[in-house]
Amino acid sequence: EKTSTSFTTISKKASSIPKMPFPQGNSEKDGRLLFEWLIQPFGLKKFFSNIWERKPLLVRRHISNYAEGLFGSDDLNRILNECNVRFGVNLDVTTYQDGRRETHNVEGRAFSPVVWDYYKNGCSVRLKNPQAFSKPVWQLCATLQEYFKSMVGSNIYLTPPGTQGFAPHYDDIEAFVLQLEGKKRWSLYNPRSAAETLPRFSSKNFDPSEIGEEIFSTTLEPGDLLYFPRGFIHQASSLPGSHSLHITISTYQRNSWGDLMQELFSGALTRAFAEDLEFRKGLPLDYLSSLGVENSDKVSVSRSEALKKVSELFARLAQYADVDGAVDQRGMDFLYDALPPALSQDELDRTIHGAKVKMTSPGHPSACLCGVSLETKVRVLRKNAVRVCLGSDANENMAVTVHHSLQNSRVYHEEERKFFELEADCAPALEFLLHRYPAYVPVASLPLDSDEEKVNFASSLFEKGILIAEEKIELVPEQL
Amino acid sequence: EKTSTSFTTISKKASSIPKMPFPQGNSEKDGRLLFEWLIQPFGLKKFFSNIWERKPLLVRRHISNYAEGLFGSDDLNRILNECNVRFGVNLDVTTYQDGRRETHNVEGRAFSPVVWDYYKNGCSVRLKNPQAFSKPVWQLCATLQEYFKSMVGSNIYLTPPGTQGFAPHYDDIEAFVLQLEGKKRWSLYNPRSAAETLPRFSSKNFDPSEIGEEIFSTTLEPGDLLYFPRGFIHQASSLPGSHSLHITISTYQRNSWGDLMQELFSGALTRAFAEDLEFRKGLPLDYLSSLGVENSDKVSVSRSEALKKVSELFARLAQYADVDGAVDQRGMDFLYDALPPALSQDELDRTIHGAKVKMTSPGHPSACLCGVSLETKVRVLRKNAVRVCLGSDANENMAVTVHHSLQNSRVYHEEERKFFELEADCAPALEFLLHRYPAYVPVASLPLDSDEEKVNFASSLFEKGILIAEEKIELVPEQL
Amino acid sequence: EKTSTSFTTISKKASSIPKMPFPQGNSEKDGRLLFEWLIQPFGLKKFFSNIWERKPLLVRRHISNYAEGLFGSDDLNRILNECNVRFGVNLDVTTYQDGRRETHNVEGRAFSPVVWDYYKNGCSVRLKNPQAFSKPVWQLCATLQEYFKSMVGSNIYLTPPGTQGFAPHYDDIEAFVLQLEGKKRWSLYNPRSAAETLPRFSSKNFDPSEIGEEIFSTTLEPGDLLYFPRGFIHQASSLPGSHSLHITISTYQRNSWGDLMQELFSGALTRAFAEDLEFRKGLPLDYLSSLGVENSDKVSVSRSEALKKVSELFARLAQYADVDGAVDQRGMDFLYDALPPALSQDELDRTIHGAKVKMTSPGHPSACLCGVSLETKVRVLRKNAVRVCLGSDANENMAVTVHHSLQNSRVYHEEERKFFELEADCAPALEFLLHRYPAYVPVASLPLDSDEEKVNFASSLFEKGILIAEEKIELVPEQL
Amino acid sequence: EKTSTSFTTISKKASSIPKMPFPQGNSEKDGRLLFEWLIQPFGLKKFFSNIWERKPLLVRRHISNYAEGLFGSDDLNRILNECNVRFGVNLDVTTYQDGRRETHNVEGRAFSPVVWDYYKNGCSVRLKNPQAFSKPVWQLCATLQEYFKSMVGSNIYLTPPGTQGFAPHYDDIEAFVLQLEGKKRWSLYNPRSAAETLPRFSSKNFDPSEIGEEIFSTTLEPGDLLYFPRGFIHQASSLPGSHSLHITISTYQRNSWGDLMQELFSGALTRAFAEDLEFRKGLPLDYLSSLGVENSDKVSVSRSEALKKVSELFARLAQYADVDGAVDQRGMDFLYDALPPALSQDELDRTIHGAKVKMTSPGHPSACLCGVSLETKVRVLRKNAVRVCLGSDANENMAVTVHHSLQNSRVYHEEERKFFELEADCAPALEFLLHRYPAYVPVASLPLDSDEEKVNFASSLFEKGILIAEEKIELVPEQL
Repeated sequence: EKTSTSFTTISKKASSIPKMPFPQGNSEKDGRLLFEWLIQPFGLKKFFSNIWERKPLLVRRHISNYAEGLFGSDDLNRILNECNVRFGVNLDVTTYQDGRRETHNVEGRAFSPVVWDYYKNGCSVRLKNPQAFSKPVWQLCATLQEYFKSMVGSNIYLTPPGTQGFAPHYDDIEAFVLQLEGKKRWSLYNPRSAAETLPRFSSKNFDPSEIGEEIFSTTLEPGDLLYFPRGFIHQASSLPGSHSLHITISTYQRNSWGDLMQELFSGALTRAFAEDLEFRKGLPLDYLSSLGVENSDKVSVSRSEALKKVSELFARLAQYADVDGAVDQRGMDFLYDALPPALSQDELDRTIHGAKVKMTSPGHPSACLCGVSLETKVRVLRKNAVRVCLGSDANENMAVTVHHSLQNSRVYHEEERKFFELEADCAPALEFLLHRYPAYVPVASLPLDSDEEKVNFASSLFEKGILIAEEKIELVPEQL
Repeated sequence: EKTSTSFTTISKKASSIPKMPFPQGNSEKDGRLLFEWLIQPFGLKKFFSNIWERKPLLVRRHISNYAEGLFGSDDLNRILNECNVRFGVNLDVTTYQDGRRETHNVEGRAFSPVVWDYYKNGCSVRLKNPQAFSKPVWQLCATLQEYFKSMVGSNIYLTPPGTQGFAPHYDDIEAFVLQLEGKKRWSLYNPRSAAETLPRFSSKNFDPSEIGEEIFSTTLEPGDLLYFPRGFIHQASSLPGSHSLHITISTYQRNSWGDLMQELFSGALTRAFAEDLEFRKGLPLDYLSSLGVENSDKVSVSRSEALKKVSELFARLAQYADVDGAVDQRGMDFLYDALPPALSQDELDRTIHGAKVKMTSPGHPSACLCGVSLETKVRVLRKNAVRVCLGSDANENMAVTVHHSLQNSRVYHEEERKFFELEADCAPALEFLLHRYPAYVPVASLPLDSDEEKVNFASSLFEKGILIAEEKIELVPEQL
Repeated sequence: EKTSTSFTTISKKASSIPKMPFPQGNSEKDGRLLFEWLIQPFGLKKFFSNIWERKPLLVRRHISNYAEGLFGSDDLNRILNECNVRFGVNLDVTTYQDGRRETHNVEGRAFSPVVWDYYKNGCSVRLKNPQAFSKPVWQLCATLQEYFKSMVGSNIYLTPPGTQGFAPHYDDIEAFVLQLEGKKRWSLYNPRSAAETLPRFSSKNFDPSEIGEEIFSTTLEPGDLLYFPRGFIHQASSLPGSHSLHITISTYQRNSWGDLMQELFSGALTRAFAEDLEFRKGLPLDYLSSLGVENSDKVSVSRSEALKKVSELFARLAQYADVDGAVDQRGMDFLYDALPPALSQDELDRTIHGAKVKMTSPGHPSACLCGVSLETKVRVLRKNAVRVCLGSDANENMAVTVHHSLQNSRVYHEEERKFFELEADCAPALEFLLHRYPAYVPVASLPLDSDEEKVNFASSLFEKGILIAEEKIELVPEQL
Repeated sequence: EKTSTSFTTISKKASSIPKMPFPQGNSEKDGRLLFEWLIQPFGLKKFFSNIWERKPLLVRRHISNYAEGLFGSDDLNRILNECNVRFGVNLDVTTYQDGRRETHNVEGRAFSPVVWDYYKNGCSVRLKNPQAFSKPVWQLCATLQEYFKSMVGSNIYLTPPGTQGFAPHYDDIEAFVLQLEGKKRWSLYNPRSAAETLPRFSSKNFDPSEIGEEIFSTTLEPGDLLYFPRGFIHQASSLPGSHSLHITISTYQRNSWGDLMQELFSGALTRAFAEDLEFRKGLPLDYLSSLGVENSDKVSVSRSEALKKVSELFARLAQYADVDGAVDQRGMDFLYDALPPALSQDELDRTIHGAKVKMTSPGHPSACLCGVSLETKVRVLRKNAVRVCLGSDANENMAVTVHHSLQNSRVYHEEERKFFELEADCAPALEFLLHRYPAYVPVASLPLDSDEEKVNFASSLFEKGILIAEEKIELVPEQL
């Protein structure tokens, strides 16, 4: 293997490395532990100081069952057999041969015998959005998402022996490639220019002549991880005699400082116009003659004064920048994009998501209202799945809105944005719950005036799926 | 019960009445048998000559388990417990009290304890599109659809004791109300005018003062059926002490002669312009002065000649009416709207829909191509789920297209229109299959030139899910 | 010159032929006289029975000053000097050389020295919409429009010696080519097919290989007229040593029976749906299987019955065709498209269009209200410039609306549709005026209840420019 | 008259005050002189340092013929008599009585007797865009526009004795009210709040209760001027026994620093994204939890670091702000909005705008090309009517474009944006012409390579109407 300053390899066999941690329900901790597991034995701190968004990292683990239970080719087969997987929408069959990239999708459902026929004829199979079909992949992505606070997605790639399915290209996301079965030979190339470093959009398929010198190549084996930042060109092919299966986990798509600045600006200018006379004052009579390309070489008092004024206004505009408002806007967008949390059975039993009513007899449900009482101890279900924001209601009055991802679909944007208005009196109670996370707090401790309000407020959040109780919830039988 | 000439009641207890027939796979027959079952002991012929689109029919059967296995309140509970039922989208909770109709939906998922709480507080529950959640309802609707050749939908209504959930109104569909549990008191009213007889659009909620005299009222008990044509105003309430559960099956929404004529006209005029000089000839110089409201009382030669000419052109236009083309257009629209067929396990085993591949080892599927050979005997999966039409391809050339509903979603229009182009040579082979239905024919008998073409053609239809084999299909192991 | 059955030439020198008649104010008569002048000595009756929309007509008159005063190259020059003529919008400079047609327009105003430079370099000059710049051309078109009741437009073509400016093509209008200066050699070709006979849309530029045999060629000299129906291919070039100037007058663009039928149908179907149960009744259960391309060769009772029913409904639909309504719709469209009338000074003096107020002193107009009294005798200004129609107002109530072209712009559609609502009581008074045309009637004779109403109604029409008085109108001095 | 610090009155009778200066062709000087005349004897420097955008100014001149020749009620009458003035579009008739503001417009042409009738009945008449109908008003506005470099518009108000036509309100433009005839009583009120000081949009009609204390009232007499900045509420009524006629000249609509900043920002962010890695780098993992309304009271390192980073990026963004590019964008918009220059006869004779060709005989223009030679001395027609900008052509290549207002219509935006591409080689020649303004320079002195290029370049600008020659241009006779 070539060495280079632009990547880092941890090859030490780590026999003591722990298995994939199962989420325990404290989402912040769960996310961190899972990400630590993903890159270990490489350390978290070092990763973020040396590697992240900087250079590729290879973690060679020599533990072939490292991601056991996550996803295998038998899972892919089961999904094809059981689910409505559609060509183009959920699955692509592709080839890259003699420098030519082709997609072989037909219309409609991707029935398993048909997909396997393509595979046997040398096509790579890409399952898009596997988190919609596989609970472990869903759980992996949803848990990592609590760590990254940016949507985490994934793709599964199955490659028949001795083939390559995709042309060299770069992506617009941070990529974590985890080898699941077989072997795959990877080649990496530096971003081609400063402008293509951490790019905002993915590249076209490159011709080999366009991608420069390979900086690194390696063969991934099961349990190995390869990370590379957006902008790094890559291609990979399976070895003769061995198929390959890997998952690529992706995050941080258009989640940059500039994206925040964009959000910030339009708002800032609107406020500056509204609040600052300097922005509403007329331009000087001669600005069109002292400025402009035509006058860029002129030296004049009015030009330099105008440029100075622009600078001042630029600086001044910063005062009108509502950073918290812009962040909240991005927070809402994140909750719209986000995967819903994947609940364990234990969690299901303690939330409305798993509350099952039985029927006593036709027309007679055994119970109905969920038994939230003053004694019930609750917390929010996931720290980063709920956000309290300020907005305006239909009458342009200030209103507190709560956005959440708890009823999102595993299919991206299949559900509309989920949010509701909160009476201003109740905002502190929700903030209390968020700030006390991961502690469970008794409903009685909520900062609300009456016991009735406390129970009503907790019940309403519980019924929307936002709260989880510490103990299993019993449904309350109720007489008509 | 009031009697009237405007409805028909068959009250004879029919102890020998057969149970709901299970579809046998011959879709035309299955559809007819199921519809016969729905209205028996009232006869099919008499129904269509006396009742259909004319007047209500009450079938009192005194067989409370008549529709056993179709849908019960326990099924509703199970669906709420297990499925992502969303307020507004899939389910409404409503009341009609003191002449006021209200919807009590909240945002998002309709968790079962929440829905039951509404119910216990007197709300009616309407499950929309139950065929998406219940296999028996899906099967019922999809089978009836093969009979009606118009989309068949349904709603489930659960009403707590002593309440009414909906205001009096009329619908734009033919309605078959089948009582499933409990009792419900129905009142029917004649269409209010000729213009509201067989109307194209549903009414608003009426005030009691707007709906005239009740023509009929009855209490439905489990197993009873009430049919009424679109335009008949109706309202219903459960009895004190008894809840009510019924399914309303609906069909023939905007499936009228006028809808066909509309399709026919624009095409006819386009053709007349293209082919008939009489349509392109100039209007007479004086037509604006001999015709028009201003001149409607005038008697003049030019007026009567112009009116005569219009009549002639109207008649002549009929020659340019491509009835088959317009019907095909409606046929394609039907296949877009239609429920997909509900396959039995036996059918699944003989189609690609149930073809399951096993994995020999990671990366090694046990088989792939489906084993269609010259000897395989096949037929189309459902008679009315496939249609061969003439259209034009991207280059405006005449092309044969095949539209089908075999990969539709149980959710209306969730999938795009499914169709593909057929090489002109293959059209007779598909028509042969359609015309031989329900017979299974050997692939060898297809009217195509070579054995290879026959197998390829049959395989391609089989892989799209359009064909079913007479015998269970064995997957063919294949070596790479 | 070749002779052929497909065209007609009147070559007789007609020394007694009258000059271009000046409009006298009776628009129906003025229009007819002007059109007679245009084609004489060929007769009106013979023209419409043998020529119109059938075949070309050449009228050779050997009277070079036949259209004296209409338009000369000096008028074109004056227009370029004085008016805001814009390249592309109002004027094209073009060449057709070696089978290649080119447009040489630049951006913006076509200043006269620039246009003449193109001309001197061999470019043809086409002035579009000359009626907007030349009063005689406006008067010609507006007067003929009263005869054709279809918009009449024109183009002026100036061609330098020995050149051709346009490729062979056909148009979608009836064309009257009147030679004004110099000579031009014309070649005509039959429509290429039945489908291109009286076509609805103009052709592309043809290659000489595409246009078949010339059927006729001739050299037009000043005063000569060449008519040819839409669909006849034509090309023309000036002779060496002589420039050419001609005007092409056009009319009857998409003014065919089919256009009326199109208007008629959508309305008829809407009414049939509303009024006729047969159109709302459901289609037969088996129509999709007995009709459609797939079944077009089948013989079946249900197919023949369905086809018969379609025929019947087609015939029946004719009953719902509101011919007068459709004609009124076209009448309104005509009034939107139409040129405004070109008024003589005498006419101006007797209408609001020419009513000039003087100022007594600053802030003191000498008079204001126009002096319409019971004794004033009035008529509508042009017979075909006003139309009374039935429509519905903002509240969907039946309303009488009056559409007119009296305030249209000479630029096509520059003004919005001009119409106003009429109180139902006043409709007979306006119809009375229209039916009495061209007679002037005293305001006192209007069929309205009171003298006040009569004067108010006549005043309001007079103030909109719709009425003309028999005598010059005196403005009434009025004290504040 | 009340005195107040918020306005300034110059009441000194200035018998020596010069008449309205006639433009001499040097547009920068002409503009300044005309504005000086408008406000004199108040001085220019003092106006811009003390008054402009700050407070009202009353200039009482006691010279009733101060604006002689500009506009009188006889001009209004002439325009109504001769031009196509349309209600709503060009003219409003309004009343304000008993706190109720009404518009009495009817549809279509505003014939003079009708308008005067409204006037005699107490309606105010507002002529919108009088510069389209009156050459002196056009000249006034177009000349002031060269001074303000922002579109200058105007309205004429004619008010019958003892009435008021408009409710109290404020506008979004700087307003110069020049009394032309009669007398009018004005009342002014301060902006109601900081937010309504120099507002971006005009107000609704206010109720008297909403406008606070009058700060100033005065009666304007002919020759008097009242200026007030946007945001100052005003109302005015004529005196019993005296009508009133005034013109309101307006400018500086949305021509503020903020408008420039808006232009600047979007461009700056696009460039920052493209060029600056800091903008493309990912946000910190925890930004959603340290920022946002929910966290605005928290003190944390990550919060303060993020806020600091935002500040830095804000500052840094200024580096990507292309002030010249944004100014050019506004310059182009100004040239699209602007009135075209009003040329004197002398100017017409020296530009293409007045170049008239004569006809020698039919088909024979006397001359064509304009005689621009190396010796011809030229300058641009107006300093601020032409702008050289950088943009990109259809292929995204850098291109020099020239925008100009020389072919604009006197009707706002009636013409499309006028611009053309310039070969890069020619840009210095046009800049040379602009920088030498108002000097006339010989074509021979243009910084271009060959004599042919110089003549061609000058000719092409001359033919577009951009250049004016020092001497009258003779057209060049040319032989075919």
